[in-house]
Amino acid sequence: MTTEIQKSLVERNAAYAGKFTKGGLPLPPGKKYLILTCMDARIDAAAAFGVDLGDAHIIRNAGASSRDALRSILISEQLLGTREIVLIKHSGCGMLTFTNEAAHSLVQENLGPEAAAEIATLDFLPFPDLDQAVRDDVDFLQKQKTIPESVAISGWVYQVENGLVRRVV
Amino acid sequence: MTTEIQKSLVERNAAYAGKFTKGGLPLPPGKKYLILTCMDARIDAAAAFGVDLGDAHIIRNAGASSRDALRSILISEQLLGTREIVLIKHSGCGMLTFTNEAAHSLVQENLGPEAAAEIATLDFLPFPDLDQAVRDDVDFLQKQKTIPESVAISGWVYQVENGLVRRVV
Repeated sequence: MTTEIQKSLVERNAAYAGKFTKGGLPLPPGKKYLILTCMDARIDAAAAFGVDLGDAHIIRNAGASSRDALRSILISEQLLGTREIVLIKHSGCGMLTFTNEAAHSLVQENLGPEAAAEIATLDFLPFPDLDQAVRDDVDFLQKQKTIPESVAISGWVYQVENGLVRRVV
Repeated sequence: MTTEIQKSLVERNAAYAGKFTKGGLPLPPGKKYLILTCMDARIDAAAAFGVDLGDAHIIRNAGASSRDALRSILISEQLLGTREIVLIKHSGCGMLTFTNEAAHSLVQENLGPEAAAEIATLDFLPFPDLDQAVRDDVDFLQKQKTIPESVAISGWVYQVENGLVRRVV
């Protein structure tokens, strides 16, 4: 079975590949940095943050959580040579709109007790204050012994309303 | 202090925002799907996979691991209404090039025993076979009680050499 989304993926990818000229790029990011941002559908990370193909790792998860991204960050730094972390959360983030309790209740309600039990210990990592969450995440990264002090870490907010970033820390 | 990368981010973002016209998009993804792919610098997810702004959540981590992405996937589906998962790993992935043992040894060597101890239990989630890893990850998702059977799940490989995707499962 092929869904409409899968059909569209194949068609639009074929158009992309038809004009593709960057087949020889090396594995490690050319500009030795990583961007950590949210999975939000309103963010085109490469375009909005000016990342050319091959320049930077781009990690994305719900809320741009640095805790959730730690495995990927360590691989980027320890194995692939990145030396700078750019953390970008955004206005209107879904993580500002619910609590852990509400999310667990919703799973129980929608999918029943077995499903709820399967993720009973899961922290969805929501946050109530955007700028504070940026500061907390940068702080979390700075405290990791696995991230050397020589790694530059900055924290930003992307504004989905006007496409602009502003620096928080 | 402002790094060259931060300067470039601000400059290129200002150019993006100057032409930005999509400030009114809603929070939930318009096409109700999510793409899970790798953080690799050679992937421009929006362009290569034909995702227009606002259409889909894009989750990225080292190796496009579905286990690592589960929190984000659940938020996408249970709270934000997505109904399809498109998992895309890629050729030449860094996760094919090392083992957990090698990664832990490297951290010990580069950063010392305290840093190594901090992540002693971390699974870096490397994999030795690309297509098998796609199948295993799709299987993992299909077995989750928190992901209803009505959610379509497909697994793909993106070829960094020529920009094409091919379906695995």
